[in-house]
Amino acid sequence: MAKELTTREENYSEWYNELVVKADLAEHSAVRGCMVIKPHGYGIWERMQRTLDDMFKETGHQNAYFPLFIPKSYLSKEAAHVEGFAKECAVVTHYRLKNDPNGGGVIVDPEAKLEEELIIRPTSETIIWNTYRGWIQSYRDLPLLINQWANVVRWEMRTRLFLRTAEFLWQEGHTAHATSEEAVEETLRMLDVYADFAENFMAMPVIRGVKTESERFAGALDTYSIEAMMQDGKALQAGTSHFLGQNFAKAFDVKFANKEGVQDYVWATSWGVSTRLMGALVMSHSDDDGLVIPPKLAPIQVVIVPIYKGEEQLMQISEKVLPLVKSLKAHGITVKYDDLDTKKPGWKFAEYELKGIPVRIAIGPRDLENGTAEVARRDTKVKESMPLDGIESRITALLEDIQSNLFNKAKAFMEEKSTRVDTYEEFKKVLDEKGGFIYAHWDGSSETEQKIKEETKATIRNIPLDNPKEDGVCIYSGKPSTQRVIFARAY
Amino acid sequence: MAKELTTREENYSEWYNELVVKADLAEHSAVRGCMVIKPHGYGIWERMQRTLDDMFKETGHQNAYFPLFIPKSYLSKEAAHVEGFAKECAVVTHYRLKNDPNGGGVIVDPEAKLEEELIIRPTSETIIWNTYRGWIQSYRDLPLLINQWANVVRWEMRTRLFLRTAEFLWQEGHTAHATSEEAVEETLRMLDVYADFAENFMAMPVIRGVKTESERFAGALDTYSIEAMMQDGKALQAGTSHFLGQNFAKAFDVKFANKEGVQDYVWATSWGVSTRLMGALVMSHSDDDGLVIPPKLAPIQVVIVPIYKGEEQLMQISEKVLPLVKSLKAHGITVKYDDLDTKKPGWKFAEYELKGIPVRIAIGPRDLENGTAEVARRDTKVKESMPLDGIESRITALLEDIQSNLFNKAKAFMEEKSTRVDTYEEFKKVLDEKGGFIYAHWDGSSETEQKIKEETKATIRNIPLDNPKEDGVCIYSGKPSTQRVIFARAY
Repeated sequence: MAKELTTREENYSEWYNELVVKADLAEHSAVRGCMVIKPHGYGIWERMQRTLDDMFKETGHQNAYFPLFIPKSYLSKEAAHVEGFAKECAVVTHYRLKNDPNGGGVIVDPEAKLEEELIIRPTSETIIWNTYRGWIQSYRDLPLLINQWANVVRWEMRTRLFLRTAEFLWQEGHTAHATSEEAVEETLRMLDVYADFAENFMAMPVIRGVKTESERFAGALDTYSIEAMMQDGKALQAGTSHFLGQNFAKAFDVKFANKEGVQDYVWATSWGVSTRLMGALVMSHSDDDGLVIPPKLAPIQVVIVPIYKGEEQLMQISEKVLPLVKSLKAHGITVKYDDLDTKKPGWKFAEYELKGIPVRIAIGPRDLENGTAEVARRDTKVKESMPLDGIESRITALLEDIQSNLFNKAKAFMEEKSTRVDTYEEFKKVLDEKGGFIYAHWDGSSETEQKIKEETKATIRNIPLDNPKEDGVCIYSGKPSTQRVIFARAY
Repeated sequence: MAKELTTREENYSEWYNELVVKADLAEHSAVRGCMVIKPHGYGIWERMQRTLDDMFKETGHQNAYFPLFIPKSYLSKEAAHVEGFAKECAVVTHYRLKNDPNGGGVIVDPEAKLEEELIIRPTSETIIWNTYRGWIQSYRDLPLLINQWANVVRWEMRTRLFLRTAEFLWQEGHTAHATSEEAVEETLRMLDVYADFAENFMAMPVIRGVKTESERFAGALDTYSIEAMMQDGKALQAGTSHFLGQNFAKAFDVKFANKEGVQDYVWATSWGVSTRLMGALVMSHSDDDGLVIPPKLAPIQVVIVPIYKGEEQLMQISEKVLPLVKSLKAHGITVKYDDLDTKKPGWKFAEYELKGIPVRIAIGPRDLENGTAEVARRDTKVKESMPLDGIESRITALLEDIQSNLFNKAKAFMEEKSTRVDTYEEFKKVLDEKGGFIYAHWDGSSETEQKIKEETKATIRNIPLDNPKEDGVCIYSGKPSTQRVIFARAY
């Protein structure tokens, strides 16, 4: 392990880029804009997936799988959707390769041209709603509550590992309902699921809110988001949930007969989170020595490192450690015992710090004599000698404490970096000097929003759901306003 | 539910096609050759995934994720591989859409042409070995044991749901080793994992064996397979495991320093199973009334249907059933209580039969009086009245019995349909009249294999690993042979 991370203070952006690679989360692939997710990174993503999947199933959803390809014409069927998504897409035009008759290797067979080009899905509303037409006839078929785990492609020009990649992994929920009210309820239910996941598993506090019109998903009547704050004071949109009204049902002619036998278009929602959450996780908790992973998402929660000289000492330590590993596992804790003799303990300590393993236990000859172990927590770096006897329940409690400490720390940081301002001068000053979430009055017009964005690069992240009503005037236009919205520079 | 399945005897192929759609496993999508996997089908696939994933992890593998796209030139780097895979592929040539200036809707932007075309992965050896070059320097980095769950695309001209589709879901293991012996050992270990999964979870007996040269994976030194037999006597290759030698390491220049510091190319394996297993599952056990799902892979293992007249009776039944549901769940059994009042019990019975739920429990007013329930097993259709008291352990035992009964039945069928023949006349007669696996002597030449295939459509499925050595003569050429191989017509 080469431990020479740029510090966050030196260059936050560089720190992130280096950390993701050095901690073996992901790397750039040979294909422009596409990443390779390495086993350590994928291990965290699997835990995110498993947790979210359980939450989706508890709220009544089932998984299904729809095609990777979308016929080009489908994108055009919903007017707003085509504006948003028929842009930078991977386009399949041919379906065969052949040997170049002129000896130039393998070439695309010009005779194997598709009649209609296929787009690699940037999101699946169109192909899914085209399918739902066959699945929904009556109110008895509703609600239809489906989720898909899949890869999607958006041909981004400037990419960053996890945060913005051409191909990424995600889940997309697509639900159909008999009434507008039910669809809105579902939209908010899934926003809550995302907030619950972000706060209680990622240890990342978020603000639930509704997006402004200009930031809505292409084809939605309302888009809700959870917004988190990174350590550099920038905002990151961590999940979105959309109320789609009857737009896609109308575009793909999906009607149902209600209890009275009357035909109506179906009401829709969609909602998604992606591997972008991996970037949010890294930027929420990690430090200049490496990753910090909340215990609930750590592929390995505890690593045990023996400190020894010679085979015999190692054997004595292993004799104590192997039953401990077994007993920690029985307590539901994932443990790795690293007794490889090709690396020194110091190297291992730095390596596991870099990789963010929440708890490290070191056991040396003196510990053997005393029946103790040295326990170090990754978040605060505090070390403590503990008796081996009954250590399992202490480790369990320690993991819980790390999980809540990470959340509390991030929450305090977010609060500290949240500022109310009442003038545009103050707004610009806070934005440049402090960053973070700025709560300010806004006149509700897209024009004002656009001008502030152009002048300051700050956008309205969302309008918090639990916003207190409060009379004020827009910081930009001076027009009256009834509530504050959250501005921030964002990822 | 429209219960008008073609019977297996009428037309086995039609029976399969209808059953997959009617039982809500999958359907054709609007995109040629691509399927939609419906929730019931995906629920079975998820159980397959979860089980296999646990088995892979128990054998030391980790998951990772590599790009969907493969640069065209990569396919050409391994000589045999390009022959096998640079054929019917989905080719991405452009990365942007735009509005037609002539008002023709959305068109592909001719200016956004890729310098090098990208192929949607038909399999990932090339992109993965190109990545491994950066991951492997020393023997300390080996073995590298990685698996990927992904979608792949092969532009098949004739498609059938699950059995052969343009896009399918699969897992592909890609491992790197310091020695040939270790790589061969891994190849066989994973073959055993597949056989274990097929037999003990899918209840589908398989023959482990090595493929002949002409049936090898493009780029492998040896391909091993598990072969299963479907109810129509045709063979289905259910999984393959490849020993790749140093072919891909050489093609992508992946070397390592051994303990003595000497550089050598790395040894490789790859192995995969796909959603094709879903087709194998259906064709192994299902009958003219619908699916039969082995309990270990059933998304719902037990369905409870109340038989009642009026609200009050339903309430009385539910009072008994709800604690039963809870207690069955506590026994690790997945249960659905279907108290929907929009369908009659008869309709429900047929529906759950069609969907292959292993056990159905019906409870009516007389059962309430007697403290009993009517328990029907899907595999044999046998019904039995059981006391509710202590029913949990009886259901557990019943599920185990169904699981082993399905395996035993399939095993007996496979044995019954396995024939040893010694002449080509006999071979053709058995093939046409009985089908199944034909054990016959073969002279070991690709020429003979090819001629038999042309004349009879039978291929050599594999050469069983536990094959007894036995002197004989090739049924086709009369040349000497030392062992029998398995011929069959196959999916």
